[in-house]
Amino acid sequence: MKILFADSFPDSHRLQLEQAGHNCTVDPALNDDTLPDAIGDHDILIVRSTKVSADTIDAGSALKLVIRAGAGTNTIDKDHAAGKGVRVCNVPGANSVAVAELAMGLILSIDRHLPQSQSDLKTRLWNKKKYSKAQGLMGQTIGILGLGAIGMALAERASAFGMRVLVVAKDRRDPAISERIQTIGIEEVADQDALLGASDIVSLHMPANENTREMVNSDFLAKMKDGAMLINTSRGELVDETALLEAMDNRGIRAGLDVYQNEPASGEGEFSSALAQHPSVCGTHHIGASTQQAQTAVADGVIRVIESFENNDLIFCVNA
Amino acid sequence: MKILFADSFPDSHRLQLEQAGHNCTVDPALNDDTLPDAIGDHDILIVRSTKVSADTIDAGSALKLVIRAGAGTNTIDKDHAAGKGVRVCNVPGANSVAVAELAMGLILSIDRHLPQSQSDLKTRLWNKKKYSKAQGLMGQTIGILGLGAIGMALAERASAFGMRVLVVAKDRRDPAISERIQTIGIEEVADQDALLGASDIVSLHMPANENTREMVNSDFLAKMKDGAMLINTSRGELVDETALLEAMDNRGIRAGLDVYQNEPASGEGEFSSALAQHPSVCGTHHIGASTQQAQTAVADGVIRVIESFENNDLIFCVNA
Repeated sequence: MKILFADSFPDSHRLQLEQAGHNCTVDPALNDDTLPDAIGDHDILIVRSTKVSADTIDAGSALKLVIRAGAGTNTIDKDHAAGKGVRVCNVPGANSVAVAELAMGLILSIDRHLPQSQSDLKTRLWNKKKYSKAQGLMGQTIGILGLGAIGMALAERASAFGMRVLVVAKDRRDPAISERIQTIGIEEVADQDALLGASDIVSLHMPANENTREMVNSDFLAKMKDGAMLINTSRGELVDETALLEAMDNRGIRAGLDVYQNEPASGEGEFSSALAQHPSVCGTHHIGASTQQAQTAVADGVIRVIESFENNDLIFCVNA
Repeated sequence: MKILFADSFPDSHRLQLEQAGHNCTVDPALNDDTLPDAIGDHDILIVRSTKVSADTIDAGSALKLVIRAGAGTNTIDKDHAAGKGVRVCNVPGANSVAVAELAMGLILSIDRHLPQSQSDLKTRLWNKKKYSKAQGLMGQTIGILGLGAIGMALAERASAFGMRVLVVAKDRRDPAISERIQTIGIEEVADQDALLGASDIVSLHMPANENTREMVNSDFLAKMKDGAMLINTSRGELVDETALLEAMDNRGIRAGLDVYQNEPASGEGEFSSALAQHPSVCGTHHIGASTQQAQTAVADGVIRVIESFENNDLIFCVNA
């Protein structure tokens, strides 16, 4: 089959597909505007963040399958694709470990003041006295909102650090999830308020949608303990940034953030943000999913989806 | 009994001793020079980093027990104490979790460039492109040199991150340790060279003594993989700093360091160090043991030692 990659793809995995007889074109320079002209008679289109519009779907004379090399499919016009008989699949869970690792890195960085320590050392300042003020993670309570693949990966790691792990109870869980909750020793609390009131650290692992938009507002923050940590490696849209700034200024809330409401879409540039520049924020540049381990896992998943499509047993379809 | 604390001690724990009938004096301002005059007729002396010299031991008219609130006892003249019938005890293992947490924090910080990310964000630079270049920890190999309480705590955490954990095989291990090696899934390799050659990350958890002095020399570093990470949260004396600088400049070795050969003895000051200021070093200010969790665990341990002394069943004695 003719496969177009509108984003980068590991050479090793491209070779694997070519050895299986596929014709692969990898063109990371393609963007939302140029993709409709480039789709031509490719059978399969694979994208990371490039948008797949109705125009692209209409222009693809042989298009049968669009694969999102990652989890979120909000950049693909899934309904239009369904109307044209084009299947859309994603590769869920492959990024989860990378995001959970970053969340743990942010928590440890905040607790032990790692970025500030480093910055002082580089300017020849020694301050053991200041940086010795830390709580330590063992025995602390982390509340995880959203127990999907990422939340579960974080729970496993936090539990190995001797932390108490809370999630909100839910009816009719998948038995496999219930079993992991038991194995890891995760505690279920009645509702979100109970979780917020009991947690030293609250970590968000929810998708961005109309139900979660600015869920972290002044009410939410008022229910958190003074001095608690908020971790957001999900989406900037989940947080009312004005309310968070106020909670940091007035109640000692500390935040570890990988995402922001107005973050640049580009790979590099200027980013003026009261939140990112606040001294109580330990921040990164929306790099949660960006590790070699995750990229390899996603590419493995893309190949599995292509194989399942060839075998008429399609996996991970999101517009069936 | 009359107890002198020549360093700080938590109020809650001091109260517990006073309620048990002891007379406690807490004087963190005491130092190596003033301690001999202050010891008087105290029965028990408790120190953190303050030196206990032969003069102090001779001056203590009622001194029976010296407790190091921590692990290392190289600052106490143990032999002289033994000769005078004064027992010296430590509180081993209580700091281990805090040090292992810091080691994981340094590893995650290096892998995901957390300090540099933070520093760029604070100056309004967005660089997702640069900071997306990370390996991820899952599937990587960590070699742990020194499988005491700290090494074991690190092994547990690294294993929960999906890392392969190597240690050097040893004859006649304590059966409890062998069991934990099996439970965690730690792999034993024949010797240090085999460990260095197979590890993406090498973490040092050895005491400083004549056998370990500058054990990380140019030979040691030459056996590590190009681009590998060296983590030192033990003692600066373990590392030949000139050799490490050369390995960072020429072979892409990266280092996470909490300790340095010429680190200041003071809590704050200037610290000029080619190593601490090197761009490939992620550094902290000898804060490994400095968490509330560790301080509480150490203070709990001090009380256990005092109780064991009263019950004529002394624990953790290092000069019997």
